[in-house]
Amino acid sequence: MSKLGGGPEFDLIRSFLADAPPLHSSVRVGPGDDCTIIGNLAISTDASVEGVHFRRDWLDAFAIGWRASAAALSDLAAVAAEPIGVMVSLALPEPDRADFARNVMRGVAECVKSFGGSLLGGDTTSAPVLVIDVAVVGRVVDPVLRNGARAGDEIWVTGRLGGAAAAISCLQNNDSPNAAALERYATPRPRTREALWLKARVEVHAMIDLSDGLFGDVSHIAAASGCAIEIDSELLPVDRQSGATYEHAVAGGDDYELCFAAAPGAIEALREEFERSFGIEVTRIGAVRGGEGVHERRADGSVAPVTLRGYQHFRD
Amino acid sequence: MSKLGGGPEFDLIRSFLADAPPLHSSVRVGPGDDCTIIGNLAISTDASVEGVHFRRDWLDAFAIGWRASAAALSDLAAVAAEPIGVMVSLALPEPDRADFARNVMRGVAECVKSFGGSLLGGDTTSAPVLVIDVAVVGRVVDPVLRNGARAGDEIWVTGRLGGAAAAISCLQNNDSPNAAALERYATPRPRTREALWLKARVEVHAMIDLSDGLFGDVSHIAAASGCAIEIDSELLPVDRQSGATYEHAVAGGDDYELCFAAAPGAIEALREEFERSFGIEVTRIGAVRGGEGVHERRADGSVAPVTLRGYQHFRD
Repeated sequence: MSKLGGGPEFDLIRSFLADAPPLHSSVRVGPGDDCTIIGNLAISTDASVEGVHFRRDWLDAFAIGWRASAAALSDLAAVAAEPIGVMVSLALPEPDRADFARNVMRGVAECVKSFGGSLLGGDTTSAPVLVIDVAVVGRVVDPVLRNGARAGDEIWVTGRLGGAAAAISCLQNNDSPNAAALERYATPRPRTREALWLKARVEVHAMIDLSDGLFGDVSHIAAASGCAIEIDSELLPVDRQSGATYEHAVAGGDDYELCFAAAPGAIEALREEFERSFGIEVTRIGAVRGGEGVHERRADGSVAPVTLRGYQHFRD
Repeated sequence: MSKLGGGPEFDLIRSFLADAPPLHSSVRVGPGDDCTIIGNLAISTDASVEGVHFRRDWLDAFAIGWRASAAALSDLAAVAAEPIGVMVSLALPEPDRADFARNVMRGVAECVKSFGGSLLGGDTTSAPVLVIDVAVVGRVVDPVLRNGARAGDEIWVTGRLGGAAAAISCLQNNDSPNAAALERYATPRPRTREALWLKARVEVHAMIDLSDGLFGDVSHIAAASGCAIEIDSELLPVDRQSGATYEHAVAGGDDYELCFAAAPGAIEALREEFERSFGIEVTRIGAVRGGEGVHERRADGSVAPVTLRGYQHFRD
């Protein structure tokens, strides 16, 4: 498996894998990347739990379905796979098992329709709280993994960061997020087309989607690639329009932007065309160095290792 | 999609699919069968929820993991696919996120090791109750679907029926199930090898695994194949050793045996070898006729349509 970054979540996953039987010969990429890859198919699952990833007074049924699907599709984008579809396990309280469930699944269907793929199957059952687990399947011949970054590469991100975290901060304080922030949280847009576009034009050495927070996610690229990553705090595209702070941008998750490593100059040559094609920015935020871990270059030129902390999901 | 049998669960799934975008061209078998089939891969998901599919005073952590994996692997067996592995989404209360979670995953790993495949990935998150959703991936070149039964075929089942339901009945009444019944419920054995063995020797026209109850599950074969299925009540292999009743055998689920249609005489010729190879029976229980729905032939020779009712999961 690819080496994962630090943190208790990943210690737990490492302990699970210690007990697992060896991989089947058809498995090209096993646990530890954004997707498992078998033959030309990329597969991933992503579970969202009421009270952990969302609250019903924050998101309506449609957004719950959209957001869960977008999170799963984002894992496909991270390896530059083309979506084929999703399978949805929907567990929810008995009284919700008609209109509410149907609206959740409309959100799933709309999201999948927007980014490619269909509804491939699923399962519905009752449960005390709503849990939606989306398994996503895509086609990929030559996947971009987390382990290909090399010293000298540049680190880039799509879009702007921290908007979803800014929305969650507001909601937790019983404030109303602005429309831009709420959209970032409720109906995030997986960067499916952006990933395929980049992959078709340039050799992307390593890529991940930003679901747990920039510093935590980037640490997986560093660990898998056996290198250090330096993020330049001055360069970060903080999503100010959504009210995001620097803290939201580096530690908040749920933006589902892409972060990737590429050779010096390779992306700059495409930047304008990318931004014209997709209406979002692509920004160089750092570089790959020898060593290990994630380091932050501050405005005063000092560089310090980052104490990893991903975005902590709120608790009820 | 394959036509599904009746019932509110399936009405809900039909409503979800009505909103879904068209299938990607690589999808050979879409929703409505035991697995979705894309290229040579069969994929399915199966969610188990605490308080719905199991209770913690009934099953220990190991059995919770085993049972959830067995249920998912059983979907692969139903299309005669060879397991490649499982991806597990595990949502559970915060205090359980160390030893308990690890024991659940040991159950997953042991089950997968016993029937082929590995742990391909997954996701862990907190939740108010334990939810384990297992996505399973297998290899299949020539799948057995639900839609190939034809008038004149015989209907067969592997093993004996009703043991898991007998265990659940006891547990619900605060009685202790006998060891045989408890084993059937807690650590069911997906009929992976049996399915591959049969498929290699005889043309199996249609197959399903028995997860919701014989009558309900058989109704899906009837609906998908556009035929009627007659079950002979005298022939049913009721799992008396587990204390199962006829009612448990026809309406109880969770046995994860296989039910399939084959040409007259085809299975009888292999029956002894099958039973010697696997140590379980294979029993002819009925026949495929023209018409629709499921019909029950009683001891007195009368035949009556079955009012469909799958196994109703208990509620807290």
